[in-house]
Amino acid sequence: MLYKTETKDFREAQVAFISSLQEDICLHLEQEDGQAHFITDEWVRNPGGGGGKTRILSHGSLFEKAGVNMSVVHGPVEDAMRLQLSIDGDQWFACGISIVIHPKNPYIPTVHANWRYFELYDLKEKLTDRWFGGGADLTPYYLFEDDAKHFHRTLKKAMDPFGAELYPRYKKSCDAYFCNGHRNNEMRGIGGVFYDRLRPIDAADAERLSMFQQSSGNAFMQAYLPIVEKRKNTIFGKRETCWQEIRRGRYVEFNLIHDKGTIFGLKTNGRTESILMSLPPRASWEYDYHPEPGTPEDQLLQVCLSPREWI
Amino acid sequence: MLYKTETKDFREAQVAFISSLQEDICLHLEQEDGQAHFITDEWVRNPGGGGGKTRILSHGSLFEKAGVNMSVVHGPVEDAMRLQLSIDGDQWFACGISIVIHPKNPYIPTVHANWRYFELYDLKEKLTDRWFGGGADLTPYYLFEDDAKHFHRTLKKAMDPFGAELYPRYKKSCDAYFCNGHRNNEMRGIGGVFYDRLRPIDAADAERLSMFQQSSGNAFMQAYLPIVEKRKNTIFGKRETCWQEIRRGRYVEFNLIHDKGTIFGLKTNGRTESILMSLPPRASWEYDYHPEPGTPEDQLLQVCLSPREWI
Repeated sequence: MLYKTETKDFREAQVAFISSLQEDICLHLEQEDGQAHFITDEWVRNPGGGGGKTRILSHGSLFEKAGVNMSVVHGPVEDAMRLQLSIDGDQWFACGISIVIHPKNPYIPTVHANWRYFELYDLKEKLTDRWFGGGADLTPYYLFEDDAKHFHRTLKKAMDPFGAELYPRYKKSCDAYFCNGHRNNEMRGIGGVFYDRLRPIDAADAERLSMFQQSSGNAFMQAYLPIVEKRKNTIFGKRETCWQEIRRGRYVEFNLIHDKGTIFGLKTNGRTESILMSLPPRASWEYDYHPEPGTPEDQLLQVCLSPREWI
Repeated sequence: MLYKTETKDFREAQVAFISSLQEDICLHLEQEDGQAHFITDEWVRNPGGGGGKTRILSHGSLFEKAGVNMSVVHGPVEDAMRLQLSIDGDQWFACGISIVIHPKNPYIPTVHANWRYFELYDLKEKLTDRWFGGGADLTPYYLFEDDAKHFHRTLKKAMDPFGAELYPRYKKSCDAYFCNGHRNNEMRGIGGVFYDRLRPIDAADAERLSMFQQSSGNAFMQAYLPIVEKRKNTIFGKRETCWQEIRRGRYVEFNLIHDKGTIFGLKTNGRTESILMSLPPRASWEYDYHPEPGTPEDQLLQVCLSPREWI
C-alpha cells in the first residue's frame, strides 16, 4: 500500500501543477491582451470519471482565440484505448493541460503546448505503468529567425539542467510529429519540443521527471510572450491575413487528420468543444496555392518543408 | 477470355460516362456562373497506374469554389486497401467522378456528388468482384423546404425506374453516412442519396446497374441548378456569411475526420490537391457556438440534428 500512497500524493502534485499553470497562463494572456477575459467552462466526464476546466478567450485585442484547458480524468481501459495507445491494464488516470493561442496579427505566431501525466493500474489497483508527456511548438506565418531562436532557446534552457541530450532529442521528435505527411511532409510551423512516455524507473526518478515537466511548463510564457510583445505593433493588411488563413487551413488539416490526441478524443466521446478549441478562428483553402518564390510567404513555407536547427 | 473482353468494354463505357458527365457539369456550371471558367489539371498517378483530370472553378460570380474531378486508376491491391476497404484480390481498377460546389451566396446550398465503379482481379487476371457506388447530398446554410424537396424528388425520380425501394434505402444510407458523430450525430446537411458496393450478379445485371448509375449521375444538374437559380439573387450580409463559415467548419470536420474517401486518399499517397478541393474556400470556428433558438440558423441546425423525410 505504500506504493499506492506515494502514487496518490504524486498524482495530486501533478494535478496541482497543471491547475496552477492554467491559472498563471490565463492571467498572463489577459494582461497581455489588455481587453478580453477568459470565460470558464467546468465539465464533468459522463459517461466516465473526472472532468475538466476549459478556459477560452475570444475576440481580444491581440488574441483572436486562446484556449487553456485542463482535465483530470480516469476510467476503465477500453478497447479503443488499448488499440490506439497500445496499452494494457485495467484502470487508467490522466491529467493534462493543453494550450492553443491564435493571435489576430499575422506577424505574431500561433502557439500550442501540452503537458500530461498518465497512469495505468492492474485489476488489484496496483500501479503498473506511468509516464509524462509534453511539448510546445510555434506556428509563425512569417519567419523571424530571432523569434524562432528565442522560442527554442527558452525551451532548451528549461530542459538543460536535466540533461544536455534532452533538447536535441525532443526537438527532433517535435519536427517528426507536427508534420503534414499528405502535404509533402510540410511541418505546420517551426517546431519546438515534444516528448512522450517518459517513464520513471523509481520514486526518485518520478520526482526528477516531475521537476522536468514543471520546468518545461513554467518556461512556456517566457518562450512565447516576448515574441508577442515584439510583433504586436507590426502593421498588417489583407495580404498577410489571407496568408495567415491559408496556413491556418494547414493547421486544421494537421489537427483533424494527424493529431493523435484530437482523433482519439473525438472517437472516444471526449468533450468536442474542448478538443476543438484548438482550431483557428478562421481558415481558408485555395486550390493548389503556392506563394511566389522569394516572397516572405514562401520563405516561411520553405522553412516548414526543411526543418532547421535554431540553436 | 470472353469475360475479360466483356469487362474491358464495360469498363470503358464507365470511363466514357464519367468523362462526358464531367464535361457536361463543367459546361453547365460555367454557363450558370457567367463569369469564371474552369481550369484543367491533368495528372498521372505516380507511383501507381492511371491518373485523372481535376477541373476547378474559383472566385466566380456565383461559385466561390467548384471542383469537378475524374480519375481512372489501377494497381496492385496493397495492405492499406485490404484493411480499409475490406477487400481481397491481386489487382484493382477504379474510375470515378467527384463534385463539390461551394457557392458564395449563403442562401445557395453547397452540394457534393460522387459516382464510382470498382473492379477486383485475381492473380490470373480474372475479374473476381466489381461494384458501383455513388450519391449526392445537399448542404444548405438556410432551410428552404421547397429546395430540399426538389433535390430529393429529382434524385428519387432518377432511381424509381430501377425499383421503388431504392430511393428510401439510399436516402437512409445517406443520412447515416454524412453524419458528424463527434457533434451529437449532427448531419452536415439535409442529405440526398448514397449507395455503395452494388454488385452485379451477371452481365445483364451489370448493364442494368450501369444504367442506374447513369440515370443518377445525369439527374444531378437538374437536382441542383434550379435551386441555384431560385436563390442566387437573395440579398445577404455579414450575418449570413458568418453562419455559412461556421457550417463550413462542420463540413471540414466531416471531410477530414469521417469521410472514408478523403482519409483513404490522403493516407495512400493520393493527389492531395484533388482530394482536398472538397474543402470550402473559408471556414470558421467559434467556441461553443449555438444559434439562438427560433432563428433561421437554428432551424437549419435542428433539421441537421433530426433528419426528415422530404417526400
